[in-house]
Amino acid sequence: MNTFGRIFRLTDFGETHGPCMGGVIDGCPSGLRIDTGFVQQELDRRALKGDGRRESDKVRFVSGIYDGCTNGAPIAFLIDNEDGQPNAAADGVLKPSHSSFVYREKYGHTGNEQGGRSSARQTVCRVVGGAVAKLLLRAHNITVAAETLSTARITTDGDTAGSLVACVIKGLPAGLGEPVYDKFDARLAAAMLSLPACKGFEIGEGFRAAALCGSEYNDLQNSDFSFRTNHDGGVQAGITNGEEVCFRVAFKPIPSIRMPQPTVDYCGNPVTYTASSRNDACAAPRVLPVVEAMAALVTADFLLIENGKLKTEN
Amino acid sequence: MNTFGRIFRLTDFGETHGPCMGGVIDGCPSGLRIDTGFVQQELDRRALKGDGRRESDKVRFVSGIYDGCTNGAPIAFLIDNEDGQPNAAADGVLKPSHSSFVYREKYGHTGNEQGGRSSARQTVCRVVGGAVAKLLLRAHNITVAAETLSTARITTDGDTAGSLVACVIKGLPAGLGEPVYDKFDARLAAAMLSLPACKGFEIGEGFRAAALCGSEYNDLQNSDFSFRTNHDGGVQAGITNGEEVCFRVAFKPIPSIRMPQPTVDYCGNPVTYTASSRNDACAAPRVLPVVEAMAALVTADFLLIENGKLKTEN
Amino acid sequence: MNTFGRIFRLTDFGETHGPCMGGVIDGCPSGLRIDTGFVQQELDRRALKGDGRRESDKVRFVSGIYDGCTNGAPIAFLIDNEDGQPNAAADGVLKPSHSSFVYREKYGHTGNEQGGRSSARQTVCRVVGGAVAKLLLRAHNITVAAETLSTARITTDGDTAGSLVACVIKGLPAGLGEPVYDKFDARLAAAMLSLPACKGFEIGEGFRAAALCGSEYNDLQNSDFSFRTNHDGGVQAGITNGEEVCFRVAFKPIPSIRMPQPTVDYCGNPVTYTASSRNDACAAPRVLPVVEAMAALVTADFLLIENGKLKTEN
Amino acid sequence: MNTFGRIFRLTDFGETHGPCMGGVIDGCPSGLRIDTGFVQQELDRRALKGDGRRESDKVRFVSGIYDGCTNGAPIAFLIDNEDGQPNAAADGVLKPSHSSFVYREKYGHTGNEQGGRSSARQTVCRVVGGAVAKLLLRAHNITVAAETLSTARITTDGDTAGSLVACVIKGLPAGLGEPVYDKFDARLAAAMLSLPACKGFEIGEGFRAAALCGSEYNDLQNSDFSFRTNHDGGVQAGITNGEEVCFRVAFKPIPSIRMPQPTVDYCGNPVTYTASSRNDACAAPRVLPVVEAMAALVTADFLLIENGKLKTEN
Repeated sequence: MNTFGRIFRLTDFGETHGPCMGGVIDGCPSGLRIDTGFVQQELDRRALKGDGRRESDKVRFVSGIYDGCTNGAPIAFLIDNEDGQPNAAADGVLKPSHSSFVYREKYGHTGNEQGGRSSARQTVCRVVGGAVAKLLLRAHNITVAAETLSTARITTDGDTAGSLVACVIKGLPAGLGEPVYDKFDARLAAAMLSLPACKGFEIGEGFRAAALCGSEYNDLQNSDFSFRTNHDGGVQAGITNGEEVCFRVAFKPIPSIRMPQPTVDYCGNPVTYTASSRNDACAAPRVLPVVEAMAALVTADFLLIENGKLKTEN
Repeated sequence: MNTFGRIFRLTDFGETHGPCMGGVIDGCPSGLRIDTGFVQQELDRRALKGDGRRESDKVRFVSGIYDGCTNGAPIAFLIDNEDGQPNAAADGVLKPSHSSFVYREKYGHTGNEQGGRSSARQTVCRVVGGAVAKLLLRAHNITVAAETLSTARITTDGDTAGSLVACVIKGLPAGLGEPVYDKFDARLAAAMLSLPACKGFEIGEGFRAAALCGSEYNDLQNSDFSFRTNHDGGVQAGITNGEEVCFRVAFKPIPSIRMPQPTVDYCGNPVTYTASSRNDACAAPRVLPVVEAMAALVTADFLLIENGKLKTEN
Repeated sequence: MNTFGRIFRLTDFGETHGPCMGGVIDGCPSGLRIDTGFVQQELDRRALKGDGRRESDKVRFVSGIYDGCTNGAPIAFLIDNEDGQPNAAADGVLKPSHSSFVYREKYGHTGNEQGGRSSARQTVCRVVGGAVAKLLLRAHNITVAAETLSTARITTDGDTAGSLVACVIKGLPAGLGEPVYDKFDARLAAAMLSLPACKGFEIGEGFRAAALCGSEYNDLQNSDFSFRTNHDGGVQAGITNGEEVCFRVAFKPIPSIRMPQPTVDYCGNPVTYTASSRNDACAAPRVLPVVEAMAALVTADFLLIENGKLKTEN
Repeated sequence: MNTFGRIFRLTDFGETHGPCMGGVIDGCPSGLRIDTGFVQQELDRRALKGDGRRESDKVRFVSGIYDGCTNGAPIAFLIDNEDGQPNAAADGVLKPSHSSFVYREKYGHTGNEQGGRSSARQTVCRVVGGAVAKLLLRAHNITVAAETLSTARITTDGDTAGSLVACVIKGLPAGLGEPVYDKFDARLAAAMLSLPACKGFEIGEGFRAAALCGSEYNDLQNSDFSFRTNHDGGVQAGITNGEEVCFRVAFKPIPSIRMPQPTVDYCGNPVTYTASSRNDACAAPRVLPVVEAMAALVTADFLLIENGKLKTEN
């Protein structure tokens, strides 16, 4: 349940208010050079807060790398938490549109004290796993890049904003993905919807396709098999066609607003809850390296499934 | 790769131009009464073509049911194909926005002759699997219903249309889904994107959420823990909260248009391709029971994961 | 639960007293020529009864093969049952050392009427799946062969006998298997213990190794890396070393003896049960193609995991 | 590949000569009290060396436990290595009957420097995972206990010995395990064969069953459904029958003998290799808590699959 992927797999752990976050990357081919500077750089991209402050996450690899290269053993990493103390502040309060109510229903506690696993903090593990996946993809000339398309306009102090993110995967070979349940874009959609606050995924024309006719939409091919258009976003019948894979992801506003909201406590008593100032106002732009990481994990997994254990030359 | 689900699992097979379609439903609890009339009725909903004609699919169960009830063995079913002959018609042509090019890249043949596995024909298997899942859900007072929200306007004879479909799951308990990678809505998104021609998925406010502020969006709770609004669409932090699960799915226009389109053959020679009149003009409304089937499969799977092998009373 | 394998996967269904047995082979590479005569021959090897009679199983492929070769779609097959009527004979009796008691505890019925899934009849599906795996292995010059080493001596009319079977896999490359949980021999052991009546598995020296010293046991290597001995049975640290993989499997006597045995019925009332004359007296020799089939399935799966989707030339 | 289990899952990492070993236990129900003293005690049982010395492994939990109980998040643990420096000693030598040759074939290096993943050191992770599983089983009155039955007699200084271990699981409910591929004893066999140096597994009468007749072997039942004998070792048709599960495991002699052995280096040059004095002479008795750990992991997994997420009261 805390594992992502089939061959290239990330299993991770850690809670905001515990001592550390960490994870295990299994299935990465032996002999891949790990540029730890690049991995740290990806973490740093995620660390930049909206107010200009930074989280100071430092990644430490403790297994699976020898002499700078993967050796076929599982790659384990740790990232210390700065704030490793349980947070008693909002104990017993059901934070609006947050995980506390569903946690109580599922686990018998709100998870508020530990921060829970659905916290955005967990995404540091995705970024590290994704960075290793990017290094594997880079060796095959595949790149992943996300950007913010728009954010909601905030008119009130302490409010938060939804955001729209686009991502492009370039350099993919044709033939990745399976024609029925394991479609490339089905795995990509699951990867994106697994992100905190994500509420929508579309590929190529996406929702606009619902208002188009076949004569407008179809991607025609030239004699060299290149495509004249890319309405399908690089995936046809669940399989990559060699064009750029283009998709968009919608994020709802961060639920923790620094404004008083009426809610209830564990017993159903009405209380007022105001989030602390430490939260972000918007998923973007910090979510960009996370979106890229998930796209890289999906792609690396399909690449290994299609081609077996790739021989990596450094 | 041709299996969907973890505990409640559908594995299916068959090609349009082979003798039959079929599948195996594994993990269904013993003792569930199988209303075969209902299963056939679901197939009949899918069978109604846009021009009023019907496909005559008849389902036949060959394993796993004894005396009208499941017995814990895998449930197998067969559906004969009417047109079981290989189709040589479009052999060697890369049909625009269709699976033929990516099939050629992946498997070394276009799949045109057999119809391939990404054909809409494969969805009969999903409908049967989904119908059994619905019977399990019905025993827990959970229902699934889809409707067409809109379709593209066709102005030219022989053209095809995109469509937008909405679906609601009612009666779900709170607590289904996992907080990180196996979020309820992540699995739902993968299920929908696995459908032929699907290009987008959104839950609750979906893409509209990207333009909203937290103060507008957050779902507040009453003292009896009921929700005042359902912007989140029944899933928070990947876990159901007991509200209705509401999602929308976008389908591109069917790629087979009855109009001449320029394309190429296997060798890259320019050819003109015009689809035959047997194809549908729009995914909706035939896709509605298929959307419901996939939603039912996802829900049944999570229900069994959360509660173990439910004791079913009939 | 009714699926075996990870990449090369067999999912099967059917009960002795239902209309047919069948299965789906998923993950087989596209382009493998399927010699259906060979598959039938393997079934025929299994069909020969101890008393010289034969079961008349005929396999019919209904999906995944086009023009004699696999096309990348799931390969489905059906085998009709001759005796497709429910068997009311022993209804309500707990047959000694049989599945009826544990079935009652698990599913709420004995499975006697349908024959259950733990019946030896189910192994026809394994043989078909294994025959396809053997065809894949043959293309890589890998062979699998089992033989009966010994059987218990029967002194009383109607009694049954335990048996000991040996199997050798030849032509394996070094490097298959994973060093920790997915050891080649761990998967092989699970495959064998999944067979009806199997009570033991050993590889190489097996249980004899427990009484040996390292100076007697260790397999030394020559300058050309060949091994002087093969006490380890071709697997070291869970990974094949290129030597022959040699293992032995112990089967208990078939529990259905044609002699009166005291047992109880569903309600605990003492009854006497005598099995009918249709049962075999010994797992061997009919189990030989089944043992080979499971070994072939395990090997094909590891081969695909190690090498990805092999390009098969015919 | 470094994950064991389906619902109750252990994923682990670490190499002998890296900084630490560790793992992630996923799928453990929320609310289970973790007696860390007991977990440490299990590690201490494994730590006692044949010569009376002890390894000083200390386990540290860093995630998934709050206020002494599991909280539903993945449980992560770390164990520091005392000897965290790469070991250049035997670099390039193919140690006889060891992992170095197969590692070279699979990964392109011997793994000697890091100790590899097939090292006995890895079993500390199994012991911690198994100890948590035992705590879950204890809450259901299930116990697991292993003992040494025999060891080979060593006549020469520095030699090593094979050993035979028996294990009993008591208190199991009837009904765990699946009738075809996921038989309880098939999973158990795979678990045992996944242990370093394991060469055989048998349950109940095991290999002796091959020489018995049905009239001698069958386990008859009394009117209260109790069994008069337990030749089957508590598992029939792959499903537990409520009797004690009894199995035996054979271990080959530890391959590292403190005697000169002729072998070759990477290039095939003849060399003599003598193992250092740090290795054990026999898998038993240190392997006993490891055998129990694997049996506990298998049992906990089946228990959760059968009963869903058990509500645990402390």
